[in-house]
Amino acid sequence: MKKLINAADEVLVDALAGVAAAHPSLSVNVEERYITRAGGPTPGKVSLVSGGGSGHEPLHGGYVGYGMLDAACPGEVFTSPVPDQILAATKAVDGGAGVLHIVKNYTGDVLNFQMAAELADDEGVRVEAVVVNDDVAVENSTWTAGRRGTGATVFVEKIVGAAAERGADLATAAALAREVNDRSRSFGVALSACTVPAAGKPGFELAEDEIELGVGIHGEPGRARGRLVPAKEIAAVALDAIHTDAPISGEVLVMVNGLGGTPLIELYVVFAAVADWLGARGVTITRSLVGNYITSLEMAGASITVCRLTPELADLWDAPVQTPALRWGR
Amino acid sequence: MKKLINAADEVLVDALAGVAAAHPSLSVNVEERYITRAGGPTPGKVSLVSGGGSGHEPLHGGYVGYGMLDAACPGEVFTSPVPDQILAATKAVDGGAGVLHIVKNYTGDVLNFQMAAELADDEGVRVEAVVVNDDVAVENSTWTAGRRGTGATVFVEKIVGAAAERGADLATAAALAREVNDRSRSFGVALSACTVPAAGKPGFELAEDEIELGVGIHGEPGRARGRLVPAKEIAAVALDAIHTDAPISGEVLVMVNGLGGTPLIELYVVFAAVADWLGARGVTITRSLVGNYITSLEMAGASITVCRLTPELADLWDAPVQTPALRWGR
Repeated sequence: MKKLINAADEVLVDALAGVAAAHPSLSVNVEERYITRAGGPTPGKVSLVSGGGSGHEPLHGGYVGYGMLDAACPGEVFTSPVPDQILAATKAVDGGAGVLHIVKNYTGDVLNFQMAAELADDEGVRVEAVVVNDDVAVENSTWTAGRRGTGATVFVEKIVGAAAERGADLATAAALAREVNDRSRSFGVALSACTVPAAGKPGFELAEDEIELGVGIHGEPGRARGRLVPAKEIAAVALDAIHTDAPISGEVLVMVNGLGGTPLIELYVVFAAVADWLGARGVTITRSLVGNYITSLEMAGASITVCRLTPELADLWDAPVQTPALRWGR
Repeated sequence: MKKLINAADEVLVDALAGVAAAHPSLSVNVEERYITRAGGPTPGKVSLVSGGGSGHEPLHGGYVGYGMLDAACPGEVFTSPVPDQILAATKAVDGGAGVLHIVKNYTGDVLNFQMAAELADDEGVRVEAVVVNDDVAVENSTWTAGRRGTGATVFVEKIVGAAAERGADLATAAALAREVNDRSRSFGVALSACTVPAAGKPGFELAEDEIELGVGIHGEPGRARGRLVPAKEIAAVALDAIHTDAPISGEVLVMVNGLGGTPLIELYVVFAAVADWLGARGVTITRSLVGNYITSLEMAGASITVCRLTPELADLWDAPVQTPALRWGR
C-alpha cells in the first residue's frame, strides 16, 4: 500500500486537520467528527446534513457552505458515521426550522442516520430524511438493500441547498430532494480497485484488460466484468443502462465523475462520448460537471450521472454556491 | 495500459470535444488546437496565453475565462504546442493591448513560444513572454535547461489574470508575472509513474516502498529515490528544499496539488502536515488550494507550491475568477 498518510488509523483525523487549516469558511469539530459552516446555523433556514464513510472526497465535507450543506459527518474510510456523531452535527446546525438528512443508500448509513434522527426528535429537533438511491447498476449489493446511492447525492445537496437558502420549509426541502433523486440515475465503471488504508490491500482484482461494469463507490461488484473497450463503448453501456431504467429526454444535467485515479483528460474524453450519445437521441445537456466529485479513493474509472431537469431544478442548480468543491454565482 | 480513451492518437482531439461540450463559456478551435473565452478578446485588455503539453489538466484549458487566461494551447500529451498553434491563439485573443505568453520552462515550450512571439510581432501583435521556473528539485532535467516550471504557473495565471482585468498594461503584467514566479517555489513527490497513451507503458518504475523525491510533472527524475515515509516527513523534505532555496516567511499562499492519481483525502493529510511545518516557523497560510491543479496524468503523488504574498498579490488572488477549474468572487 502506497499512500500519502502518516498512519492507517490516523487518516481521518489528519485529513480533518487539513480541512480545518485549508478552509477558514468551515468549522471542523475533530473530536466529534463533523464539519459545519464557520458561521453557525442560519436562524429560520432548514439545515442540510449529510455524511457517510470517508474516501469519497470532496463528498461530503467539500460541499459544506452557503447554498449547499450545513454539516457533513465523515465516518472512517468506507465506514458509516455513528449515530452520536450525526446527532451532534444535527443539533449543532439546527436553526429552528428543522434538519434534512441526506443519506446515501447503504445499510449502515441508513440505520445510523435513522437512529440519530430519533435521538434528535427526542431532543426537540425536527428531522426529515431522504435516501439517495440513483445507481442503476445492481438492485442489491454488498452493503445495500435496494439500489446504491452515488452521484445523485451531489445533485441533491446542491439543488436542495439552494432551495433551503431561499426559504423552503422542511417538508418542501424533503420533497424536492426526493424529486431530484427520482429524476437522477447513475452508472459507474472501474478500471482498477482501491485500497482502504486499514485493509492495506486492494478490495478486488482486475486483470490488465478487464473492467468492472456497474462498480459501486466502495468497489462493490457491478453487473459484470468486461474487457476494456473504447471510451465511447463504455459510455454507451452506462447510458444504455440508465436509459433503460428511466428514459432520458429533454434537458439534462450530466456529471462525468472521476473515481479518484483517472486523469481529467480522460473524463473529458468520456464527456465527449456522453454528449454524442445524448445528442444523437435529441437530449440536450444544459448543465454539467466534469471532475472528481464523488470518489472511491484512488480507484481508476468514472461514473456518469444524468438528471432530467425541470426549469425549477435548473434555476436552483444555477443559484449561488460557496463550498470548497463547488463555487459559483456570487 | 488501461485508460478511458478511444485510441491513443485521438486523446487530445476527443478531450477537446469534451471541453467544448462541457463549457459553453469556452470556445474550442479543434482544428488549430486552442481554447479561448467564448466572447472573444476584451478590447484594450492585455491578453494572457499559456500552453504546453496535455496531460496536466486542468492546466491550461481549465484556466481560460474571466480573471485568468484568454487562451490555452494544448500540445499532444507531454508534447509542446507548435508555433503556428500558439501564433493562431495569440492573434485570436489580441485585444490591441498586447499578449503575455506564460511559458513553463521546458525547452520545447520555450522555443516554440519564442518562435510564435516573433511571428506575432511580424504581424503587428506585441508579445511579452514570462518563463515560469519554480521547481527547486533539480537545476537541469530531461527536457529543461535550468529549473522546471510547475505549480507556480497556476499562481501566475490567476494573479496576472486579475491584474489584466483591472487594466494593467503589458509591461506591468509581465513584471508582475516575474514577481509571482520569483516569490514562488515548488517541490513534487511521486508514488507511482504515469503512462503516456502513445507510449503505452509507464515512464519509469518505482518499487513498492519507493518514492521519487523532486519528480517533474512528466515523471522526470528528481533529486533522489527514497523510501515511502509518513506524509509529515515527505512534507518536511519538500518544505526544507523550498525553504533552503528561498526562505519562507510572512504570509503565504500554499497549494497542495495532486498529481492525478492521489485521493483528495491524502492531499488534506499532506496539507495538515504543511500547515504544521509552516506554523512552527511562524509562517501564516492566508490563501490555499488543495486538489488537482497541475497533474501528470494518473501519477500518484503530490506537489507543494509556496508563494510569499504581498498585500497586492493577496488582493489579486482574491479577485473574481470564472474558469472551469477556479471560480470565485462574482
